[in-house]
Parts: sequence; structure tokens; C-alpha cells
Amino acid sequence: MISVILLGAGNVASHLYKVFHNSDTITVTQWYNRHIDKISTFKNEVEITDDLSALKRADIYIIAVSDDAIATVSEALPFQDRFVVHTSGTASLYDIDAKHRRGVFYPLQTFTKGAEVDFSNIPLCIEGLKKSDFKLLKRLAEGIGSKDYKVSTEQRKRLHIAAVFANNFTNQMYRIAHEITEANQIEFEILKPLILETAKKIQTMSPYMAQTGPAVRGDKKTAKQHLNLIENPQHKAIYKLLTESINDTHGRKKL
Amino acid sequence: MISVILLGAGNVASHLYKVFHNSDTITVTQWYNRHIDKISTFKNEVEITDDLSALKRADIYIIAVSDDAIATVSEALPFQDRFVVHTSGTASLYDIDAKHRRGVFYPLQTFTKGAEVDFSNIPLCIEGLKKSDFKLLKRLAEGIGSKDYKVSTEQRKRLHIAAVFANNFTNQMYRIAHEITEANQIEFEILKPLILETAKKIQTMSPYMAQTGPAVRGDKKTAKQHLNLIENPQHKAIYKLLTESINDTHGRKKL
Repeated sequence: MISVILLGAGNVASHLYKVFHNSDTITVTQWYNRHIDKISTFKNEVEITDDLSALKRADIYIIAVSDDAIATVSEALPFQDRFVVHTSGTASLYDIDAKHRRGVFYPLQTFTKGAEVDFSNIPLCIEGLKKSDFKLLKRLAEGIGSKDYKVSTEQRKRLHIAAVFANNFTNQMYRIAHEITEANQIEFEILKPLILETAKKIQTMSPYMAQTGPAVRGDKKTAKQHLNLIENPQHKAIYKLLTESINDTHGRKKL
Repeated sequence: MISVILLGAGNVASHLYKVFHNSDTITVTQWYNRHIDKISTFKNEVEITDDLSALKRADIYIIAVSDDAIATVSEALPFQDRFVVHTSGTASLYDIDAKHRRGVFYPLQTFTKGAEVDFSNIPLCIEGLKKSDFKLLKRLAEGIGSKDYKVSTEQRKRLHIAAVFANNFTNQMYRIAHEITEANQIEFEILKPLILETAKKIQTMSPYMAQTGPAVRGDKKTAKQHLNLIENPQHKAIYKLLTESINDTHGRKKL
């Protein structure tokens, strides 16, 4: 049994609490939050507290708070030489106070409040300075059915940038498609199956192999027709730049 | 029963043949292709031909050939006043010879050769000059379990641009994420669940509401850190432009 104390009550903390609570190999010893009312609905299931000095002993202390607060909270913990991890995609492992054994337990996924989360489908990026601590995080990931990946702080920073492309920028592509359909009285619904299929395709095929469309074919005629039809100057600039990017990736001559 | 004659043997034609063949309300009267060997494996199921002058009577003639060949094939058909449609996302309805009753039957999806296609999940964009012809296309779409949408030639051109954003450009976002992970010895696998979740999210939520990340938060500190870490100048330019685009969409101050 791995004993865990959770600190924080945001999206990540709440989802982790639920999945730990349901695990056979993990027990949540305590749940701490600065404002106890945020977690008081769970008081019959788990010991809750808003007092750092009341924290018990546990195998792992998981700080799931905003990036800016990680240093402060870890410093305020009234003990040392225990295993303390954060759950951030961007904060350094070294943001955790040096008096602790330090680690990172970062689930890479967009958490939506209220929505159910299937952890068996969430990659866990783990980092630990000591071999035994690292192994403990591996077991913690296993305990919630997640696949774990060893990712260093430097790698995690790059992974976060990659996630901005794969998630935020992709979503902006959907948004622009939405703007184009709305402006032309076309139902955005029509594009939804295509969007899903595009994401499904790269689950088993590289994005390089999956590419289709005028840019990868080097079809300059269609690209020029499109550019003539696009009125929004920003959309036009994005169309040009991304067509160039696809041309470059696939060794096509530029537009 | 709707009788159909298919012309062409590419991806779209082959998928349409299969789904028509399995439909209770549609019968494929003939299948034409210039090179008969491409469709000869089906000769026990359907009448095949490579001779346009041998074409029989049918309710709908579906030209599923490359965009450039639509005009030529439709002109070469040795009859007039019959209902002839093409399946292209970009060709005009008027590319079909004026001697026919003209229409468009365009399934919006990426067809991968060999892969099974579930037409109940493919939006069909239909266009017909005569009301009765339009209704026939609606029934044809229904016969294969597809949802149909009335889309004019002008709208279809814009829809194709929107699809370039939602499919090709989105896939290039995946590709750049792939390049970033590979360059930093990170497994691209880690991003796959996020990519799928991003596409799933907008099935029930607008892309506007679904947006997350530094750009929509107006988090300039993180954006600047990212720009410092990105080495590829093209990736940097794309990061800047798409961050600006998200800033604009959500009324944030620019980077």
C-alpha cells in the first residue's frame, strides 16, 4: 500500500483524489487545502485539514497547486527528507524546496471540471532524483492504471511546447474552420467527423504519413484559389505559413 | 429503389460502390471504368463496363473521377436530360456538361484506401438544380445512412478551405509536436491521448469554449519562455502567429 497526502483542491488534485480513493494499492492518508470548505464534502471518506502542522507521515506528498505556489507550499511543509512531488507540466523539479526528496508526477491531459477522467488513458510523466523515489512514482502510476514515462525537467518544458501545438493550436485550427463555416452559413457540424478522424488517424500512423490535401500534393493552383477566397488577413497569413510548413516537411517547392 | 450507375474506380467510387451494394434501397445498375481491370473483381456482383455507349438507364449517374476529368467524362456521356452528379469537394456543379440535369453528391471525409468506412458517420453535402433531383440525392444519402447537408457550390469552396484548416493544418500541428518530441528524445506516444481528447471535446463544445493554454489565458511569461526555447525559426513564426490569433479571438492583448 502506498500512502499519499494530497495538497490542493483544483482540477488535478480533485481527479487524483478520486482515482487514488478507488485504487486498491493506494491510500489517501490526508487531504490538505488552505480553504477547507473546498474539500469538506469528502470529510466522511478521508481525513481533511487546512493546517500544515497537522500533516501526518506518508510515502508521498503530492503538491497539486498553481505553479507559482509550489515553492511556497513546499517550503512551508514542517518536515524534511520526505518525498514531495508536484504535478505541473512547466514547473521545475527544483521549484520544490531542497529540504525534501523531490519529484514530479505530471499527468498530461486536459482536465475538464466535472467531466469523468479515465486515468488508464492518461500518460504520467514522472521524475525523481533518487532511484527508489522514481520507482515509487512508477508504482503510483501503475496503481491508477496509467502508463508512465520518464521525462526530465528539460524534456517536460519541451513536451509542454509540443502540447501547445497539439492541443491549443490545433483547437485554434478548429476555431478558424468554425469562423469560415459560420461566415458562409455552413453548419460546422459537417466538419466534426473529419476532425475526429484526423485525430484518430495519427494514433496508428505518423503525422508525416497521415498528411493529405493541396499543400502536401504541391497543388499550387488550389492553394492560390484558397488564398484568393480567404478574406480575413490573419487567416490568409496562417494559410500561407502552414502551407509553407507542409511544403518544407514534405520537400515540396514553396507556394 | 434508386438505380445508380457509378463512373470511376478511385477511393470514393470504391467506397460508394460497397455501401450502395449493401443498401436495401439502392441498386447499382452498372459500374463503368475506363480501365476495366480495376473493377473486374466485382463482375459477379454487378454489371461492369468500359464502354460509355453501353451505359443503361438509371436514376442517377455518379461521376467519381478526378476533378480535371469531370467535364470531359460528363460531356462524353451519350445521352442528355438525365441526372448526373459529381462527388468533388472543389469542382463546380457547372463543370458537369449543361446537357444533363446536374448535381453534387460530396461525402466530406478523408478516405483511406483499404480502411473500412462507416457512412453513417460521414456528412454528405448535396446540391441539385431541380427540386426533385435534390430530393433524390437526399434519399440516396438516407439510403446509405448518411446525414445530408444542402451546400451550394460557393459554400462548398469555403467548406473545403475550412477542411484544410481542420484537417491538413491540424495534422501539421501534430507533425510539429512530433518534431519537437523527437528532437528531445521524448516519446510522441505521450501526446496521443491529448490529441484525441482535443478532437473529442469540440464534438459537444464550441472551439471557442474549448480553448485552454497560455495564449487564451494571456500568459505572456510562458509564451515568451516557449519562444526562447523553440529553435526552429519556422516553428517560432507559427507559435507567434497562432498565439496572436488566439489572443485576437479571445480579446487578449498581443504578445
